[in-house]
This record gives sequence, C-alpha cells and structure tokens, in this order.
Amino acid sequence: MQDALLALTRYWTERGCVVVQPYNTEVGAGTLNPATVLRVLGPEPWRVSYVEPSVRPDDARYGENPNRLQTHTQFQVILKPDPGNPQELYLGSLEALGIDVRAHDVRFVEDNWASPALGAWGLGWEVWLDGLEITQFTYFQQAGGMSLDPVSVEITYGIERIMMALQGVDHFKDIAYAPGISYGEAFGQAEYEMSRYYLDDADVEANKRLFEEYASEARRMLDARLPVPAHNYVLKCSHTFNVLDARGAISTTERARAFGRMRGLAREVAGLWAARREELGHPLGLAEAPAAATTPDTFAEVTAPATLLFEIGTEELPPAEVTRTVEAVGKAVTDKLGTTRLAHGAVEVHGTPRRVVVLVPDVAPREPDAEKTVRGPRVSAAFDADGNPTKAVQGFARGQGVAVDALGRVTENGVEHVALVRTDPGRGAVEVLSGLLGEVVAELRAEKNMKWNDPKLSFTRPIRWLLALLGTTPVPVAVSSLAAEPKTRVHRTAATPVVEVSTADGYLEFLAGHGIDASAQSRRDAIVARAEELAASVGGVVDFEGVLDEVTNLVERPTPILGSFEERYLELPAQILTTVMRKHQRYLPVRAQDGSLLPHFVAVANGEVDADLVRAGNEAVLRARYEDAAFFWRADLRTPLADMKAGLEKLTFADKLGSMADRAGRIATLARRLADEVGTADETLARAGELAKFDLGSQMVIELSSLAGVMAREYAERAGETPEVARALWEMELPRSAGDALPSSTPGALLSLADRFDLLAGLFGIGANPTGSSDPFGLRRAALGAVSVLRAFPDLKDITLTKALALASQDLEVSAEALDTAREFTVRRYEQQLLDAGHDHRFVNAVLPLADAPAVADATLAELTGLAGDPDFAALVAALQRVRRIVPADTVGEYDPQALVEPAELALHKALADVPAGVTGLAAFAAAANGLTGPVNTFFDEVLVMAEDADVRRARLGLLAAIRDLAAPVLDWQALGTALG
Amino acid sequence: MQDALLALTRYWTERGCVVVQPYNTEVGAGTLNPATVLRVLGPEPWRVSYVEPSVRPDDARYGENPNRLQTHTQFQVILKPDPGNPQELYLGSLEALGIDVRAHDVRFVEDNWASPALGAWGLGWEVWLDGLEITQFTYFQQAGGMSLDPVSVEITYGIERIMMALQGVDHFKDIAYAPGISYGEAFGQAEYEMSRYYLDDADVEANKRLFEEYASEARRMLDARLPVPAHNYVLKCSHTFNVLDARGAISTTERARAFGRMRGLAREVAGLWAARREELGHPLGLAEAPAAATTPDTFAEVTAPATLLFEIGTEELPPAEVTRTVEAVGKAVTDKLGTTRLAHGAVEVHGTPRRVVVLVPDVAPREPDAEKTVRGPRVSAAFDADGNPTKAVQGFARGQGVAVDALGRVTENGVEHVALVRTDPGRGAVEVLSGLLGEVVAELRAEKNMKWNDPKLSFTRPIRWLLALLGTTPVPVAVSSLAAEPKTRVHRTAATPVVEVSTADGYLEFLAGHGIDASAQSRRDAIVARAEELAASVGGVVDFEGVLDEVTNLVERPTPILGSFEERYLELPAQILTTVMRKHQRYLPVRAQDGSLLPHFVAVANGEVDADLVRAGNEAVLRARYEDAAFFWRADLRTPLADMKAGLEKLTFADKLGSMADRAGRIATLARRLADEVGTADETLARAGELAKFDLGSQMVIELSSLAGVMAREYAERAGETPEVARALWEMELPRSAGDALPSSTPGALLSLADRFDLLAGLFGIGANPTGSSDPFGLRRAALGAVSVLRAFPDLKDITLTKALALASQDLEVSAEALDTAREFTVRRYEQQLLDAGHDHRFVNAVLPLADAPAVADATLAELTGLAGDPDFAALVAALQRVRRIVPADTVGEYDPQALVEPAELALHKALADVPAGVTGLAAFAAAANGLTGPVNTFFDEVLVMAEDADVRRARLGLLAAIRDLAAPVLDWQALGTALG
Repeated sequence: MQDALLALTRYWTERGCVVVQPYNTEVGAGTLNPATVLRVLGPEPWRVSYVEPSVRPDDARYGENPNRLQTHTQFQVILKPDPGNPQELYLGSLEALGIDVRAHDVRFVEDNWASPALGAWGLGWEVWLDGLEITQFTYFQQAGGMSLDPVSVEITYGIERIMMALQGVDHFKDIAYAPGISYGEAFGQAEYEMSRYYLDDADVEANKRLFEEYASEARRMLDARLPVPAHNYVLKCSHTFNVLDARGAISTTERARAFGRMRGLAREVAGLWAARREELGHPLGLAEAPAAATTPDTFAEVTAPATLLFEIGTEELPPAEVTRTVEAVGKAVTDKLGTTRLAHGAVEVHGTPRRVVVLVPDVAPREPDAEKTVRGPRVSAAFDADGNPTKAVQGFARGQGVAVDALGRVTENGVEHVALVRTDPGRGAVEVLSGLLGEVVAELRAEKNMKWNDPKLSFTRPIRWLLALLGTTPVPVAVSSLAAEPKTRVHRTAATPVVEVSTADGYLEFLAGHGIDASAQSRRDAIVARAEELAASVGGVVDFEGVLDEVTNLVERPTPILGSFEERYLELPAQILTTVMRKHQRYLPVRAQDGSLLPHFVAVANGEVDADLVRAGNEAVLRARYEDAAFFWRADLRTPLADMKAGLEKLTFADKLGSMADRAGRIATLARRLADEVGTADETLARAGELAKFDLGSQMVIELSSLAGVMAREYAERAGETPEVARALWEMELPRSAGDALPSSTPGALLSLADRFDLLAGLFGIGANPTGSSDPFGLRRAALGAVSVLRAFPDLKDITLTKALALASQDLEVSAEALDTAREFTVRRYEQQLLDAGHDHRFVNAVLPLADAPAVADATLAELTGLAGDPDFAALVAALQRVRRIVPADTVGEYDPQALVEPAELALHKALADVPAGVTGLAAFAAAANGLTGPVNTFFDEVLVMAEDADVRRARLGLLAAIRDLAAPVLDWQALGTALG
Repeated sequence: MQDALLALTRYWTERGCVVVQPYNTEVGAGTLNPATVLRVLGPEPWRVSYVEPSVRPDDARYGENPNRLQTHTQFQVILKPDPGNPQELYLGSLEALGIDVRAHDVRFVEDNWASPALGAWGLGWEVWLDGLEITQFTYFQQAGGMSLDPVSVEITYGIERIMMALQGVDHFKDIAYAPGISYGEAFGQAEYEMSRYYLDDADVEANKRLFEEYASEARRMLDARLPVPAHNYVLKCSHTFNVLDARGAISTTERARAFGRMRGLAREVAGLWAARREELGHPLGLAEAPAAATTPDTFAEVTAPATLLFEIGTEELPPAEVTRTVEAVGKAVTDKLGTTRLAHGAVEVHGTPRRVVVLVPDVAPREPDAEKTVRGPRVSAAFDADGNPTKAVQGFARGQGVAVDALGRVTENGVEHVALVRTDPGRGAVEVLSGLLGEVVAELRAEKNMKWNDPKLSFTRPIRWLLALLGTTPVPVAVSSLAAEPKTRVHRTAATPVVEVSTADGYLEFLAGHGIDASAQSRRDAIVARAEELAASVGGVVDFEGVLDEVTNLVERPTPILGSFEERYLELPAQILTTVMRKHQRYLPVRAQDGSLLPHFVAVANGEVDADLVRAGNEAVLRARYEDAAFFWRADLRTPLADMKAGLEKLTFADKLGSMADRAGRIATLARRLADEVGTADETLARAGELAKFDLGSQMVIELSSLAGVMAREYAERAGETPEVARALWEMELPRSAGDALPSSTPGALLSLADRFDLLAGLFGIGANPTGSSDPFGLRRAALGAVSVLRAFPDLKDITLTKALALASQDLEVSAEALDTAREFTVRRYEQQLLDAGHDHRFVNAVLPLADAPAVADATLAELTGLAGDPDFAALVAALQRVRRIVPADTVGEYDPQALVEPAELALHKALADVPAGVTGLAAFAAAANGLTGPVNTFFDEVLVMAEDADVRRARLGLLAAIRDLAAPVLDWQALGTALG
C-alpha cells in the first residue's frame, strides 16, 4: 500500500503537482485540508497532491467491519485550473498503480458532490473499477459560498478500497501495507482504540466545551483577519462535532445550531482567505484560460448536396442528460436550420455518454438567393406634382445607395410606396452551418450546469471536442475556446484514442468500427438481447426493471457480463438484494421463471474488457456489499423494534421540525385524525402508527435508505406483528416515485397520506418551499404521492386537501397562507398529473375546482370525457356558456318570477324549476339539466335581457344567474371554453 | 524539496521501512508521533520512516527569520532494532539526496538527547554537512521512563536546513519547494498567520482551558486503558502548553505543574502501551539480537616474539571519551598483561573518534612454564615414627593424583611440609591474548554508557569491530556478539571502506596510508601547523583557545580549511563572533597581531574533501549564524534594559525557587547584605544589582546562553550605564569555569558571590544536591567559583561561607542542615582545588578548619609551606604534637599554677605565659610560640604527667591543654601529622 501511495505521489509530481503533507489536525476528508479548500478559491493556479488520513468518527467499527474505518486514507489531487484532460491524466495514474485500464472496466458514473457546511458543491463522477467505487472525481464549482473561477478538478482516491481490490483481500486489516506488515498490524490497535474513544469513551461534556472553545477562537481569528488559524479552528470544531455525533450526543437543536455556526465560520474563512490573497497580490500569479477559438474569414464552398456530420464530444454525461441532450440538440438544429434557406434532409441525432452525433443528409450546397423589398416613402410623397422626386425619396435612394431611377413600387395596405427590391444572395452551406452549429453548442444547457476550463461555456459536463463535416468538407465551428476539427475521440483505452474522420457519410458505421454504438436504441437492444442470452444460460430471465435506461447511457458499447454470488445471500429479503444490485451497482437481477431471485446478475461493462477479470471484480464488490447487508440484517434482527424506533430520536428531520421521532409521532396522530374523518380507525392503524418509520433506526436502512418501508415490513413480520400491520408500515412509504405501487390497504393509505401531508404542511410551514429545480425534501414527490393515493381511494374522498393540511397543521406552527400555498402546490401537481396523462387541458381546467378531492375531480373528468361527443351535452354547454357570458359576475342568482312576462322567459323559468334538486356528478347534472338547453336558446333568441325596465332587467338577469349557480359546482364551465364546439 | 522527501522515502522504504503519515494533531517533533514514541517500546521490531511537519510555536518569527519557522519539516526514521550499520545506511540516504559524501565533510558530532518530559533519552550525534547540522542521530535508550530493549536508532533530518544548503539559498522562503513554486509561496502565508496566532493572538484563557480539557481526557483514557487516544491528548496538552509558552503566558508554578502533569501522563501512556502490546501477544513478533560470537577451542601458536595489534572499532566517540578511552584501554591492557607471564614490550595506545589502537611490541610467543608448589601435611604428620606415610599424606597424594614417592618437601614459617611441585605450563600468546583482550572490551565503560544491538556490551557509543593480530597471526577475540577479524574499517567514504590487515607491524603507517592518523598528538600538531600556515596567509595568527583538543578528536585525519566571512560582521562584539565560531562550529578564530579578530576562521574537516566545496559550506553556515546574531544584536540594542529585565519574569529558574527575575532580585539583595558585612556598599553595586542578569532577557543570550554577562556588559555600556556598572554586570558571571577570569572589582566580586551563594543555598535548600556525575545546576562550578572569588579578594575575608550562606538563606526556605551540607560541599571543592594545585595533602588538611574564610586558609597554607623547611618550626610542631597526643580531648585548658611544683613544669608555665596574646596567622604564631618548644620537650623528659596525686595530674594536664588550645585555632596540627618530620 505504501508503494501505491508513493507511485501516485510520483505520478502527480511528474505532472506538476506540489506535494504537501496531511493536515496536522483531524480532518474528515482531504478536501478540508487548506491545500484544497482554501487554495481552490481565487484566481491563482495550483496543482497539489497529498495523502490525507481522513477521520470519520461515525465510521468507527472497532476495526471489525471489513470496509469501514474511523481513519481511512485518501489520496487527494487538485488541478487548478482544469487542465482540459483530467480524466486522461487520471487514467494514467491508475496505470501508474499497476491497473491495466484496457482489461478492466473503468467507468465514470455520475456523482455530484455538495457540502452545505462548506458552502461548496461540484459536479463529477464516482469512478468505478469493475463496479467498485475507487475515486471521487469532481469539478469544484463553489466553495465557501463563492463561485470558483477558475474551476478546480478534485480527484480523491479511496486507497484502502483500491488496495483491497488490487490485492484481492476481503478485510482492510489484511491489506499488505508494507513488505511483511499488514494494515491491521500497523494500524489495528489505533483503529480499535480510537473507535472506543469515538463510540464509547469520549467525554461528552468535555467535547462540548472544546467545541465552544474552538468556535470562539475561530471567531477571534476571523476578527484578527487571520484565515489560516481560523480555518484550523473550524476544522477542530468540525472534528469535535463529529466525535459528539458518533457518541450520539447531538440533539436536533444542537445539530442545527452547530451546523449553522460552522457554515458561517467556514464561509467567512473562505471570504477572508480570498481577500487576503488579493491583498498579497496573488503571489502565485493568475491562472490562464484557453484562448478563444476563431473561424476563418472565408468559407469553403461545396458543390453538391452532402451529409452534415456534427459531433459534440463531452466527458461522461449523466445518463438522463444523454437522452435530454439528444432531444435538445435535435430541436435546436432543426429550428435553426428552419431559420435559414438551406435545403436539407431529416435531422437525425444520436447520443452516448461521451458524444452527441447529429446527421443531416442532403444539405444543399448553398442557400438560394432571395429578394428583399425595402419600402420607401409613399409615392404621393415621393414625387411632386411635376413628377419630380422630392427630397424624401432622394434621401431614401441615397440611403440605399442607388439612384432614384432604380426604385420600383410596392403596395402595402392599399397604399403605394416607392421601394427598392434587393437580391439577398444565398450563403454557402459551410458558412451557414459554421455559425448555426456554434450557436447550438453555446446554447446547450442541462438541468444542472457547470463550468470547466472553458471561459464561457456551461453544461452538465465539460464539452471537449467538436467535429463538423459537410460531406468531406470540414465545417469550421468555433465556440469560445473550442474549434471543430475533423477528428473524433474513441475509447480512451484504444490504441489510438483520437482518430481522423474524413467524411460524414457512414459515420455511425465508422464509430461502430471503433467499438462505439452511437444509437441508444441499438445499445438498449443489444443489452436486452445479450443479457437474456446470459440469463438463459443459467436458466433464468433478466429483470430489467429500473436500470435499463441508465445502463444504456452509461456505456458507449455495452458488454453484458454474467456474474454470480453465493447462494447463501438469497436468504436475505429479495428487495435488499435487488436494491443493492440496482441502486448501488446498476446490475440487472436474474430471476427464475417463478420470479424468485437466482444467484446471478448481469453487469454491463463498457467496450472490450477482460470479461473474467471484470466479472471477478464485480462479484467481489457485490460480495462485500452483501456481506455488509447480511451483517446489518443479522444485527437488526437481534434488535427489538422499540429499540430501533428509539433510535429515531437521534435522527434530525429538519430545522424547527424536530427529530424523525417527532415526525413519526405526528404522522401517527394525523393518520388517526384522517381515519376519524372517514370513520375507519382500527387496531392495525393504531399499531402501525406506533411503529411508524421505526426501520429508519435499523442499520440496514441507515445504510440503504431506499429500503425504508421494505425493511419495516420484513422486520415487523419477523418480530411477530400482524401481516396487516407489517403491510401498513410498508405501504406508508408508497408511492416512492411516480409510477410506483400505491397502498392497497386503508391503514396503509392513511399512513401514506399522513406522511405526505405532514411533510407538506411542515416544510411549507417553515418556508422550505421548493424553488426552481431544488426540492431537497421531495415535496413535489410528496404532493404527487398524496394525490395519487387519494385518487386511488375514492372512499377517502372526504379527506380533502384542505382538510388534510388543516389537520396536519394542528401539531405544527403553520400560517394559513402557508397552508394555502401547500394546497395550491398540490393542486398544481394534480393538474400536471392529468395533463401528463394526456387529458385535454380544457377538460382538466374544467375539473380543477373540484381538485380539493381529487377522486371527485377524477370522476367528473371521466364523465366529462364520456360526454364529450354527446351533442345534447355540447348544446347544454353552449347554452350555459351563453348564460355565463351575459351575466355579470356579481349578479345574485335570485329573481322575482312575477316580474317575468315574456313567454320565453316564463318557459325558461319553468324549465329551471323542473331540474331535479340534489343531483351530484356531472353526468347526472347533464341529464337533469338537459331540459334547459332549448329554453335558454329560445330565451336569448326572443328576449332582450337588458330591458329598459329595471325590475324586468333584474329578474331576467337573476333567472340567468340562478341557472349559472345551478351549474357552477359541477364544473368550471368557462374553462371548458369551446372544447366541445 | 518535495523530490528530496520522495527520495528519502524511497530510500528507506527500500531498506524495509514502513511509511506512515505525519500525525494528525500538532506535534513538536517526529519523535512524538506514536510511530516513534510508542513503537520504540517493547520487544517488537519496527522500521518506519515518515515526514513530520513539526510545530514549535516558540520558533514563530512571522516568516521573517531566514532559518526559523513555527512549522519545520522533519524526516524521521526509526530502525528497531539497531541494524548494526545505521551510520552507513544514513550516509547512503545522503547520497540518495544527491549529496556527494566523498566531496563534502560529513561528520558525526557528539550530541546527546534527553526529554525529561517524555522520560526519554539517548546518545548519538548531530550530523554535520560542512559544518551545518542537518540531522539528529540518536540511539534511543529510554522512553516513557522505561529502558528500551532492543534499542532503536532514530534519525531525524532537518529538511529545510538540508534544502537551503543543497540549493544554496539564504532564506527558507527561497527554497525551491516544487518546480516553479518556492517554499515561501507555498507556506509563507501560513507561516505568518500561525506566527501571529502563537505570538500575539492566541487567547490565553481559552488555551488554558483547552489544556485542562486535554489533560483530563488523557487521564480518562488511561483509566480506560486506551493508550492511543490517551497519547493523542497528551500531544494536544503539549502543543497547547507550547502555544501558551510562546504567548508568554506560563508562570513558573504553572510551568512546573504542567510539566509534571505531562510527564506523568506520558509515562503512564508508555507503560500502558507496552502492557497492551504484551496482552496482544506482540503482534509484530520479537526482535532478534545478533548471536554470540565464539572463539575456537584451539589457538594458533606463534614461534617468535611479535607485535600485538589490537583495535577496538567504534562509531564516533565523543572527543573527551577518545582521550579517556585511550588511557583506560592502556591501563587495562597493561594491568591484565601484568597478571600473565607473557613477556612483552611497552604498551602503546592511540585513539581517534572511530578506533582505539593498542600496539605491544615484542610479545613472547608463549608464557614460560612455571613451578607451582602445593603444600601438603606437615612432615611430622605425614610419616609415622617408622617413616611410613600416614593416611593424611596418602590422602594428599591421592588428591593430587601422584604417588607419595613423588612428593617433595617445603619449609614454610619454619615448619616442614610435604609438598608437590607441579609445573604450570605456559600458555601460548594467542590463547592468553584471546581471553585478555576480550575482557578489556567487555569491561570498557565511559562516563555515560549506552546499549546498541549487542545483547551485552555497553559503552559511550557502539563498538562495531575488533581487530587483533599477533604479528601476522589473527588472535581470536570474541566478546558478546563481536568477533575479531583481520580487517579494519577506514574512512566510510573510501573506495574500499573495509580493508584486510595482514600484519601488526607498521599498522600506524598502514592506517596513515588509508588517510587515518591514529595519534592524537600527531593530529593536534598537524592542525596547529597547518592552521598557522593558513592564518599567516592572511596575515593573522590562530587563536587555539578552547577547541583544539576537541577538533583533534573529531577527525581521523585533520584537514584544516581557511574560511572567511564578511567584514561587516566584525562590528559585532568579538565575543559573540568567537562564541559562535567555537561553541557552535568548532572553528578556530584568526586574529591580527594586535589580537583583534580578522574576518577569517579555520575549520577542521575530516580526511580528503573538496576543499572549495567544504569551505563554501562552512562559510554559508557561519554567515547564517552571524546573520542571526546580527539580527539579535540590532533587536536587543533597540530594547531598553528594563524591558529585557522584565523578560526574566517569564524564565523559570527552578521548581520552588521562582523565576529568573526572582533569582536576580535575591542576588541583588544578597550582594548588598554581603557588602554591608564588609562595608563596601556603593552606587555601582546598587545599580548593577538592579540590572542583575537583565541580559538573560536579550534575544542574543536566549540564543547563545554562554554570552550571559558578556552581553550584559555590551548592552549596559551602550545603554549609557557607567563603565563600572557594566563591568560589575559582566564580572557577576565570572568565573564561568575552572581557570576562567575572576572579577576584578569589588562590586563584581560581591555580585559573583551573591549569584553563587544564592544558587547553593537555594538548590541545597530544595534538595537538588548533585549526585554522582549529575550536577544539572552546576553547583560544583558555583562552589568552586565562590571559593575562587573569596580567595582572590582577601579584603572580603569577613564574608565566610557560613555567613554568606546564612544571608542567602534569608530569602529562601532552607533548613540549617541543608546549609551545613552546602557549606561542607563548598569546603570540599576548596580542598580539591588545593590538592589539584599540588599542595601536600597534609598541609591542606591542616588548614581546612580555616576554610570558612578561604583567603585566611590560603594565607595560612602559604605560611605553612614557607615554614616547612624551618627546623625551629618542625621542632615546635613536634612538641605540639606531643602535647596533643597526651591530653585527652575533653581536658579543659585551665589549671592551678599553684599545683605545679617541678622546675620543668614551672618553666613551661612561664614559657606559656610569655607567649604574646593576640597573634594571628601561622607565621606570627610560630614566632610567638617558638619559646615553648624547649620547655615542652624538657617537661616531657622530666615530668610524669600522670602523677598519682590527682590535683597535680589535673594541673599538668590543664597546662598542656592550655598549650593545645593556644595552638588550636591556628592550624589542624594533627592533620599535619609527620609532614615536617
């Protein structure tokens, strides 16, 4: 292991990194060393690498857990500015470690990093070696609350992980640390003893006092404008906090306060450091950004229609962004071509994690010329009575650079003007495309964007190259620092990773020849086919649920590999196994025909790899994860449910909203209140309420949070709870996402609703409304979930949004305004749900007033849809619209029938009186009110509503308003507009 | 610089060292990392190397001082057990750093290390590179109060120092840390800011509280039997203490208490660690000691007299031990040869730092046979009347294994016995020498001894080889793990560092041929000759004072090299310059004919070196030191004397004796009291007393403590004090060692006495009596100094030891017994001084009763010596001795003259009455009492003292007692014994 550290140090030193020492106070990660967290600030260049023993008291396990240590070894690299090829440099470092990157499956898997405590975030990847996360790779975007310019690349190697993989050992203690000395021999005693300190023996009060002392020294140092010692004390604060946390000694309020304090101090340190460096005149100089690329002044001409190839080369895009970007680029190219006069074939776009490929066949060599008319003064003003040109027309001609003689005439809106007809010559295709494609790149945006070494561009991951060819003619595209070249990049591990591209034609085949399948559909098909083949070889079928889209966009050419795990792990609940496979490893589970799990999985590697090596690696990773899971499973089974539930006291929920135990208590209470509303309270609900969310205190869920609910059911059943209680506990967590299963039992549904309404009321109550794309507490999901449950349980229709939120707010401090906002937010989710399901937006709008009870709105919408083709209904709607249009909004729906005199109005009065009272639902109303259509129409044909006699007028308006009011509760008729017309 | 760290890491890794990381809490030295301080304990092997940024708040200088940093970089190596060749390994590491050890002057200069706070000590060296200390090299003997077995070798490189030398830069900030980044750019801001924290901004009260928290956590962890976290907190204590100290916030009592506490904790940590490792079964195994060497069963025989060559090869001995060891080995060989019958020539012994060479010419090839008579029974008991053997003689013969017939006769004390005369055959010389030389080595001891990898031997430094040849015949010598071989080791940098030795003859020439001068006298002569030559070349003469003996024994062949420094440094007081040269660098100053310093020096390198390179190196070191001194000089000159004096408050003197300020105050008071005794109090004394020891607060003296007094004079003069005051302040520190100058002014003498009597009274008062060779406070020197001053100032004779100590004790808590002990201790030093000066020990004893006033005793001794040849005096002494011998000690010197009747006794009575009263001094007394001689002798001839009449007897005894009492105060006549006879 020490050789590995030396090899990395040497490698990065040779690439211009300064080596510094680990920090001499405890830090939780190499990022906290001032060589990272301070040096990434400001404009000075900085390249550094160092080892950082990172202390995480919470990970203390007495040295017993094979993968978890209170002090683990990070190797940290900072490259500032981004050198433009950090991934390639990184792969070189793996080779320096003796890792054959051609034989292994090395992947960059989306992983973004944020430390609110440091006011820091970045985008990047976990790097996987045969499925094992060995490195965090981040483009640092912000630190200390300040946007970073230039951006730094942070590479953090997890050394113990890498060593265990390279040495093929199952426990960190067995790592060969130095010749003849194992890791356990060198550090085992310290691991045990420091675990004892962190978990059992640290004096809580003493550490609390230390925290205070450190915080106030940090404060003093900030006031003295000394960021270095201030940072020192912030680190000591942080470590002490971690010690207290590991000792279980941090209450919710303490946590919030401590975090707030540390965050504030850290931001001030960062600001002060940046200011001090500026005062010192930036001793290390200023980092230079790449120069702007340029296009030539003249463009090549092509003579015949040709295919356009445009490739945007990136570092590994997040899978979801691959799809999104393909769509966005396709739309942008199409739209922009549409604004030109360039004839072209259909735009075709493909994408992989590393490229978006645009192919447009039959692009004309030039735009046709066009005529353009410039309008001058009116003819009447252009020539005097003698037909001589006036000053006005002379001025116009001079301005256009032509003689008056050259002007023609044009008639606009019946007025004749002088005009100049100019020929607008078509541009060559290369010129047109040069500008157009540049704009496409410059305007690319993703859900979350970042900066890299390019001075202007911003995208989800760095864009590293552009390739543009019109047939065989290079199209010069220059965007910020990028210039298109007739080259592409294939697999980084290829013998020639950069290859020339001579022609646009057959480019997909060209890529295929280099082991890259640019078509997502093709990759997806290949995965399905090969995975099924592999599964069949062990008598199984592949369960593609969940991860297929993702793995399709994690590779440029899929290489499914069949792996196995020990059968004994099948004793664990299947959902644990599949969760680990899917969420952590992106493996496809293999099932027997009866649906039960087989001890196999399909991993999808990228490109050509040594399958045996990659299989073995992935199997080892899965084994370690299952071993961990089995450890938690056994430990949890030994723990009474009540003890797990007690653990919720220690879990913070949110500032001002108490602990998770508080939240679970509120959910139980709210579920009972909701049950009382609909008269369904029972034993199952009461017991499930008592246990609500207990599994959040289990080791399994602490580790694999997505198993919340699943584990509740498993553990509850095994602890002797009734199946109904176990089911309610599980269903309480449903639905976990759009399209997920919904509760099927009433207690489950009530708990699910209580969970979600507590979340909505609570978080809107403290003003934690979702903003833009930020929704850290998942309020959108909660609102959608609540609506889905209510829609699925029409029996619970008396639980309106308004009522549920009001009941939820009884145990919270929530303003009426916040409750309104929460309700409105939920209604909007429901609206979106309906629209997404393809309902006519006018129908949706028409039923929205009923959305407080989504099941009622649903029913109405269904009836509305059913009535849509019915001419009677259409006539009724038209009649009602006529009524609505003429009656002022403030007209009261009452009238004196005595004042009515005309036959038509009397007929209408009678028809209204004939509508049966007490009908509910749209269909019933339509039937009941059908008799109004004729009389209404006749009324409008024959009667002047606005009679001169005020009493008559009042009675007529009142009659119409009464009809309006009769219809109003049924639907928003106005919203329906002319949908049926 | 980072390359250097990597090179060292690689070098030591290749030699089996584990690499660990710097410790993640602040440490003052790499030693404190548990990888050293804990791992050296117990029997497990351990080899480790690591970088350790070492934090010393006291060295904070805002980054301004070119050589001093609050955080400097140590590279630490531990080799446990001692591999047997650590120095050679170390030299290899210098080569790995790119240092040409053949061209440079690399030297191992005695430097022992002790950390009372850690209960740790070791012996070893500073390693010098062209005069620059670049490494501490220590054989760790004890840690945590426990003796270490096996012993560890600790090698600590001072990286900034080495880098500055290698890169030839004058300020640490200018070190090229990494390509394109200087040390100052990388760490300058931290250096400044942490200096600010340590020196100015750290919150004192907060740090005091931190200290308490840390100490109590350490205590708790010890109680929990967790040495690792306990050690952690001890380190935090220590760092916090250092912060407080740098802030000047530690009072004397706090310091003592803190040290005691940290020491106690550190010892417990060590003990607990060792115990825990034992409980864990010593996971790293047990270190193995080298096997014992053996000698063959039979020995070679030589046939003719031959020269014995015996060489004991060592690692660099301390210079003083070279001389001592040469003497001790000479005596041991001579003595041991004396117990054999082996004829041999004169024993000749030579020594260098690395070898003791014994040469004995003309060693006989064998011992002669010897006859040995075994005495049997008396002849009278051996044969019966018939001449037949008795059982007794038969038994004797049987016991001796011979027949009765073979017995002869021997006469002892006039009694004839039967006897067996056996021949004791002489042994071969090789056999004799084999055993004898082995004993010499086994019995070698120095003033301070250590262990290394040998399981049994103990000496001042490791003994690494033995060479023993009798002529050309190898003498097998085996001592513990060492066996003699016919090889020696020459310079480590020689092409062949180990060479065969074929014959004892001409060995010194053989060594000379390998560039080694084994004779100290020869080396000394060579240094003197060459140094004078070099000095003459610049018109100067060499000042050999002080360091000649030392440099003679620091090299195996001296290569004096003339160096220069910039003239501008001559503006500094000469004593600063010479102190730096001598004490720090062992350079010989060069003076002009008028005694003033020239800007040159002579450094003495070892063996063949690249003189220009070595000169340049030494000049750079001296320049840096002078630059430092000049910095202090200027800073001190800007500081008012009172401010320096105020600094004494911060300097601890000794436990229970307050600060140095307290001590200075006591000295001033005591000096005034002493002056009052002799009526010499004046303005000069008063002012000098006020300023007493102020220069201990100067930066110069803090740095160069041997300049205390010198700087007081310089700064006082420049601050406008009178020349008398300046002189008194300087003289107060005199004499600093035996043979040093004494005060010449009375105020100076009084202050000097006050200084020393305060020290004696104070330290004996707290029981800090010197024991064995341990005299940390220099009480022997103080007592000798006080006596010397009193002897030099007869006018101050009224200041007796008793009186001075009593006056000193007025401001201290000292028991009467302790004062007696101090007085007696001082008298003993005086006695030793007299004996060392060659006075007859009987004369010395005779005047000792007067030693309370040494000047009086001196005068008496002088008179006694003058009278020694005077027959009258001899007769008087003899007469007085007769008197003393006969008078019982308790006889009172009174008598009734009326009881005297005999003429002789009446004559004696008259003679006694004629002795004039009030004479003082021996000479006067001798003259005055001369008339007693005859009457005393006549009295004894004619009078029987022990008359039967009790009254007469009483009167006669009373008369004699009166004579005794008359003489008693003058001298201890009894001690004089027969010295004059």
